Amino acid sequence: MNDVVKSSVASYQSGFSLPQKLYTSREAFDFDMQHVFKKHWIHVGTVADVKRKGDYRVIQIDNNSIIIVRGQDDEVRAFYNSCRHRGAKVCVEDKGHVPKLVCPYHQWVYELDGSLIHSSRMGEGFNCDASGLKPVALESIGGLLFMNLSENPDMAALEQMRSELEPFAAFYQLDKLKVAHEADLIENANWKLVVENNRECYHCGANHPELLRVWPPYGVGFGWPDDPKEKQAAEEKLNALYDAKIPEWQNMGMPYEIVEMDENRWYRAARMLLTQGAVSQTMDGQPAVKKLLPPFSEPDNSSLSMWTHPNAWLHFTCDHILSTSVLPLSEDKTLVRTRWMVREDAVEGEDYDLSNLTHTWIQTNDQDRMLAEITHAGCLTDGYIPGPYSEDSESLLQHFTDWYVDQIKQQL
Amino acid sequence: MNDVVKSSVASYQSGFSLPQKLYTSREAFDFDMQHVFKKHWIHVGTVADVKRKGDYRVIQIDNNSIIIVRGQDDEVRAFYNSCRHRGAKVCVEDKGHVPKLVCPYHQWVYELDGSLIHSSRMGEGFNCDASGLKPVALESIGGLLFMNLSENPDMAALEQMRSELEPFAAFYQLDKLKVAHEADLIENANWKLVVENNRECYHCGANHPELLRVWPPYGVGFGWPDDPKEKQAAEEKLNALYDAKIPEWQNMGMPYEIVEMDENRWYRAARMLLTQGAVSQTMDGQPAVKKLLPPFSEPDNSSLSMWTHPNAWLHFTCDHILSTSVLPLSEDKTLVRTRWMVREDAVEGEDYDLSNLTHTWIQTNDQDRMLAEITHAGCLTDGYIPGPYSEDSESLLQHFTDWYVDQIKQQL
Amino acid sequence: MNDVVKSSVASYQSGFSLPQKLYTSREAFDFDMQHVFKKHWIHVGTVADVKRKGDYRVIQIDNNSIIIVRGQDDEVRAFYNSCRHRGAKVCVEDKGHVPKLVCPYHQWVYELDGSLIHSSRMGEGFNCDASGLKPVALESIGGLLFMNLSENPDMAALEQMRSELEPFAAFYQLDKLKVAHEADLIENANWKLVVENNRECYHCGANHPELLRVWPPYGVGFGWPDDPKEKQAAEEKLNALYDAKIPEWQNMGMPYEIVEMDENRWYRAARMLLTQGAVSQTMDGQPAVKKLLPPFSEPDNSSLSMWTHPNAWLHFTCDHILSTSVLPLSEDKTLVRTRWMVREDAVEGEDYDLSNLTHTWIQTNDQDRMLAEITHAGCLTDGYIPGPYSEDSESLLQHFTDWYVDQIKQQL
Repeated sequence: MNDVVKSSVASYQSGFSLPQKLYTSREAFDFDMQHVFKKHWIHVGTVADVKRKGDYRVIQIDNNSIIIVRGQDDEVRAFYNSCRHRGAKVCVEDKGHVPKLVCPYHQWVYELDGSLIHSSRMGEGFNCDASGLKPVALESIGGLLFMNLSENPDMAALEQMRSELEPFAAFYQLDKLKVAHEADLIENANWKLVVENNRECYHCGANHPELLRVWPPYGVGFGWPDDPKEKQAAEEKLNALYDAKIPEWQNMGMPYEIVEMDENRWYRAARMLLTQGAVSQTMDGQPAVKKLLPPFSEPDNSSLSMWTHPNAWLHFTCDHILSTSVLPLSEDKTLVRTRWMVREDAVEGEDYDLSNLTHTWIQTNDQDRMLAEITHAGCLTDGYIPGPYSEDSESLLQHFTDWYVDQIKQQL
Repeated sequence: MNDVVKSSVASYQSGFSLPQKLYTSREAFDFDMQHVFKKHWIHVGTVADVKRKGDYRVIQIDNNSIIIVRGQDDEVRAFYNSCRHRGAKVCVEDKGHVPKLVCPYHQWVYELDGSLIHSSRMGEGFNCDASGLKPVALESIGGLLFMNLSENPDMAALEQMRSELEPFAAFYQLDKLKVAHEADLIENANWKLVVENNRECYHCGANHPELLRVWPPYGVGFGWPDDPKEKQAAEEKLNALYDAKIPEWQNMGMPYEIVEMDENRWYRAARMLLTQGAVSQTMDGQPAVKKLLPPFSEPDNSSLSMWTHPNAWLHFTCDHILSTSVLPLSEDKTLVRTRWMVREDAVEGEDYDLSNLTHTWIQTNDQDRMLAEITHAGCLTDGYIPGPYSEDSESLLQHFTDWYVDQIKQQL
Repeated sequence: MNDVVKSSVASYQSGFSLPQKLYTSREAFDFDMQHVFKKHWIHVGTVADVKRKGDYRVIQIDNNSIIIVRGQDDEVRAFYNSCRHRGAKVCVEDKGHVPKLVCPYHQWVYELDGSLIHSSRMGEGFNCDASGLKPVALESIGGLLFMNLSENPDMAALEQMRSELEPFAAFYQLDKLKVAHEADLIENANWKLVVENNRECYHCGANHPELLRVWPPYGVGFGWPDDPKEKQAAEEKLNALYDAKIPEWQNMGMPYEIVEMDENRWYRAARMLLTQGAVSQTMDGQPAVKKLLPPFSEPDNSSLSMWTHPNAWLHFTCDHILSTSVLPLSEDKTLVRTRWMVREDAVEGEDYDLSNLTHTWIQTNDQDRMLAEITHAGCLTDGYIPGPYSEDSESLLQHFTDWYVDQIKQQL
């Protein structure tokens, strides 16, 4: 392993942010791509991205262009986007709908399941069977898509996550949703700083005025007031609210018991109560979409959140779902892709106003972009010294950096 | 030699496209610059680029800025564009016409043959004689300029090419032509993918509608229909056309026998017949220029094509000549420079319409740009596996990649 | 040390420009940042940049963002711009005025002297005292600010410079000035070529028409005419002018004896006489500012110039001061930052016209940018050979390159 990565990890102290070079060096980035993003289950979207047979979506991760496509058998599969003839991208556009996958270079024709069915001029001896598109592991967990670029994906890890998260996701019936909007944001920051920023709400008070109109200021792993009395009062108030709400969730069959990150879990699910009567992540707290998600007949003031290492967070309310994937571009550049999903029969302009639906998180993401960028810039200086995480408010960051450093240690 | 290059070449299999890293790595690019572009004869233009004494042209190849200049003795020479005082570029503009070469920094003055004739403030002991511009080997083959950046250029290779290609080029009297247009295109692809794309027409049918209005769909090394009967019919038809045309070529003194690439030749010349009565590479097949090239009194339905490794292709019709140089910029960026030459006394707007003259190849180059770019992008993925060349239609690519791999092996 | 740097320095010949790779390679740039810019005293501005208590200025040098801030005790200090919590930049804007330094991420609060005075949610055991902003050495020499990024700044070197330059600078009372304008110019050239260009005026005649309206064509270390008789006449004329002027300077208490660079001095101060009755660096030679600098009651036709290795030059006239800092961005990109300072009570539009004040040096800097850029481009070619400095006109360059090579040798 690279010396920079090795010596950095040797100086890591749990409970503190990472040694500088793990955030800023090209060496660490190369390591991250090879041993994190090409080894773990990466959230890349949902089944709503490819609703119909023949719908495809192209995703770029590091050097890899990947086609995600729904076959004639309704299976969603992934393939490297590289023709087996001369290597050209078979799908040039980012998304589309096609009966077959045809390479634009020399018109080699592939089925939606990746098998090659036609190529001209290749002579008698040429064998189509050995020339299908190279597949990539892709799994749906209640409609959430996770991809694994390893030649030997860790299926046990996937099945463990499935057993715990599928009930949460399945409740929302993602196969009956559509993508109302997708937004890409490029942040000039290392992907781990983008993820760390997402794992705490200590920064929310001063930075996210829109989000805090509907999100609770405390709890859900996000910390408490400094003052012991205030803290106790806040805890008691929140517990009372949960106690009153739980029967309703049980009644609707909604999973609500927290799935907490620990040394065996690289994922988390938590149902939280929105504040001040809010039922959606909007400026007025009211539903952004008139047609609620399939399981809901009435607005509900809870929000389900999920986080998975290394690259995702999701927020489910009664009217829409937000899914975010973090896709590293270089050691100091990260793509943050967010999708807003609504009921498939909701009509834009009639059932929802797009800017109302997306406003809170477009603002929040941009605020977080600034925070990640100034953190990256500050971590680059010779004055950077790994600082202490707040035990109260930043324990999920410690979980993330511990997990990340573990990935490195496994390579030693 | 670099390990990436060495191990890649070890896995090369003739008849298949190159191993991934030879297209995509910085290491292979550095090798290519050092051992291909700084060792071989590179096509950099024609004598029409510097028609008059004192005309100069600056060319950038990798780190090198090179001045090509016609001297008072009518010789065309090349020099590194670096003043012998403090190293400044002597020619700042890309082209011009000057009586002397004067460095703008401290006004050192060089003759057009590179010798230093004046410098102020350098004191008594300073010797102008030892401070001429550093020369670069440059040879004209019938007016086509080939440059060699090596300290010891391979003159035997040059003379061999001269003996075979000069008759073809000389027929067109390039000293009586001018450059009507020059177009630069930057392609986000490795230079070898740009060259490979140029060496086959298997992709033409689906990608080059303009070019195929006048170019033959088969033959000239570009392959045949899959169906054996169709192939036989196409071959017989083409042979009959050639048999009828050859006496005419003989009559005019036009060389027409193919010079085929083989293990000793890194160049190729082939005269082909345009289709459907076309006599030029235009949308309607009619001449783009009223005043035909000097040797022609009547339009002629043939086109001469030349290709030289590592970086050129040329197409000669009765009214204009097209010359293209491939100039690598980085492992994933390549400059493709195309010039259209017409008779020196042809007047734009009267004798030719520039957009009519250039349309077919501006479109064709842009279509090829897209193909090279999607190939580069696909070759970058972990799903890329070197694919088989079509024996029928891609044999010139195999010649190119074999030749290229030979250049590497010579360094082992 | 890196082999490229080591072998380059071995081939260095004093009196000639540097070996190619010292100008062009990433390796040399990394060395320069580590062993020149992080070891020596770097000119970064003046006390006029942060006039009031609470004024701050952020400077970027290589990977380092640095805060320069004036404290409540009127001391000007420097700190790494990186919060001790998670590393974020505490000052996001380039300049501003604040009562405290508050990190925008989680609102940690620092005094203007860098000490941490408040952080929430960090628990009982957290010790503010150990978490102040990391300081950077910063010294004022008569109001000129010099920064040193080393952990062990060479104070002896600083005090030596102070003893010789402070009298020159102090005369101008920089604490009573303000910054009228600041201009950043990014030059596509190595920083050493930018500095070398500044250290000679051999290029001025043909390149700086504006500057030469007021600057003398000869003397001040900038060389003489080639013709021995012309040289003698020019020297005699200049000496006579100085002899006539010196009593006036003595009368005003203005230091005027040249402080020459030699093997122990990395700085230089020279008072020169402007030409043709000029008293300022303007197109008409007249003062750009009606209110002269504090020590002047009448216009004065002299100009004080200072140069410090590795990165500064300054020009003081009776109405304004120009200070320039060279801040390398990469091996082929350099930021040149220039400030024009005038009396603090001078009012723009009334007492001075900004474009009149800045015109000469904005033009001059842009002309020098072009010269540095064509030199960098020419030095990149394989035709570059270190060329001889003019003993008459380029001796200060030799001093600079000798000094620079010495810095490398000290690491061997």
